[in-house]
Amino acid sequence: MSVMLYEGKAKRIYETDEPGVLRVVYKDDATAFNGEKKEVLQGKGKLNNEISSRLFQQLKAHGVDSHFVSQVSELEQLVRSVDIIPLEVVVRNIACGSLVKRTGMERGTKLAAPIVEFYYKDDALGDPLVNRSHIQAMHLAEEAEVNQLQEKALRVNEVLVPYFAERGVDLVDFKLEFGRTAEGTILLADEISPDTCRFWDQASGESLDKDLFRFSSGNLQEGYAQLLERLT
Amino acid sequence: MSVMLYEGKAKRIYETDEPGVLRVVYKDDATAFNGEKKEVLQGKGKLNNEISSRLFQQLKAHGVDSHFVSQVSELEQLVRSVDIIPLEVVVRNIACGSLVKRTGMERGTKLAAPIVEFYYKDDALGDPLVNRSHIQAMHLAEEAEVNQLQEKALRVNEVLVPYFAERGVDLVDFKLEFGRTAEGTILLADEISPDTCRFWDQASGESLDKDLFRFSSGNLQEGYAQLLERLT
Ligand SMILES: Nc1ncnc2c1ncn2[C@@H]1O[C@H](COP(=O)(O)OP(=O)(O)OP(=O)(O)O)[C@@H](O)[C@H]1O
Ligand SMILES: Nc1ncnc2c1ncn2[C@@H]1O[C@H](COP(=O)(O)OP(=O)(O)OP(=O)(O)O)[C@@H](O)[C@H]1O
Ligand SMILES: [Mg+2]
Ligand SMILES: [Mg+2]
Repeated sequence: MSVMLYEGKAKRIYETDEPGVLRVVYKDDATAFNGEKKEVLQGKGKLNNEISSRLFQQLKAHGVDSHFVSQVSELEQLVRSVDIIPLEVVVRNIACGSLVKRTGMERGTKLAAPIVEFYYKDDALGDPLVNRSHIQAMHLAEEAEVNQLQEKALRVNEVLVPYFAERGVDLVDFKLEFGRTAEGTILLADEISPDTCRFWDQASGESLDKDLFRFSSGNLQEGYAQLLERLT
Repeated sequence: MSVMLYEGKAKRIYETDEPGVLRVVYKDDATAFNGEKKEVLQGKGKLNNEISSRLFQQLKAHGVDSHFVSQVSELEQLVRSVDIIPLEVVVRNIACGSLVKRTGMERGTKLAAPIVEFYYKDDALGDPLVNRSHIQAMHLAEEAEVNQLQEKALRVNEVLVPYFAERGVDLVDFKLEFGRTAEGTILLADEISPDTCRFWDQASGESLDKDLFRFSSGNLQEGYAQLLERLT
């Protein structure tokens, strides 16, 4: 029996016998709008685990390290343990979601250059947008670390945009989390899945991501399964 | 009779006979919370004009140029005409207002380094916080211009913090607007007044600024008059 370290909305994190290695178990729970909308959607955990594992492997093949060690079962990954930096790093290629609300840009506008945003991971505050001087004032990360987060996030984007484009999918935007290893290096962590990205099918324009659940616009598992199919 | 070019919430802007020079007339109207709270407070226009004129002169004496040409009457200034950049540049020395709501920092926390924020000037969108990549995507200002805005705003802070401290007042935070001259150089514009700054009396901790009106916590004109007295 291994000790559960943390239960989040989408995953459970367990200790393993190997020091510095954790076991992540993907859940079937879907939540949106800061937890206001909730449902159990059977099969989601498996799909996210499969997709996330593939994406971390794809990144690895392009020289982008992450916490990912291996996929060990339908629902489980082994990952390196890190101290999560409480920032959500969002990269955007096409205007959608909160960017449209914030800036008044038209949904679907292709951005000339990717937008990078930092959000303070704090549910009680509603994960607010922060800038570099907020990050310094709140001691969330050193300025040099923020540069690294930005560079690494853009590098992930550079790898994943063509990877999905070749599979007929637009990578609209995505959220990353990073952590510090025991040695203090910054490592990509958490997950990269349709829960944390927006994917638009280039042919139909349809969402293959959590927007299916957010706006009850279609069957989530079918969308995620379609996405997974493109990757295999 | 001169042509009115623009009527804002706090000022009217008129053409003059001299090309490139405008006449600003300060109004007695007080507004807060994006126009939701409104009142006419007799004497406010005169106080803001006097204070803003003095602060622009003080900045000039320290090598910080602005649109300010001269104070021509109790309510009026002559200023250089600029194309206003649609960004509010906010500098903060002490946590207050929206910074407290955004970050959860305690009101009154002295910041180790000033925070600089950019807000997109758009009433319909509620003047949202934006970062540098939003500013680029929206074509609000060139990256080099944003650097200039940040440097100039911090320079204003460097001049004004000791100026007020010597007069027993903490400069908590303030909002600046900048514009482009016909030649394309960036010039500090708009106003610097208790409508656009937070001033705390060091002895009593009392606000000498628009928070008196925002939170109906005291007589606005008395607070502004007290502040003006410190400057004369
Ligand atoms: N390699 C890792 N080491 C330690 N923690 C990790 C690692 N990867 C991800 N985590 C953390 O595991 C937690 C569980 O993930 P989950 O997505 O379920 O959380 P969540 O409900 O989104 O909430 P929150 O991220 O706000 O805690 C998250 O806090 C995530 O930051
Ligand atoms: N030198 C200048 N040249 C041109 N316009 C200016 C100059 N200085 C200030 N302004 C503009 O004059 C307008 C009137 O000022 P006021 O403070 O009343 O506006 P406001 O109600 O705050 O609204 P808003 O700033 O949203 O237009 C503002 O739009 C301001 O940006
Ligand atoms: Mg999560
Ligand atoms: Mg104004």
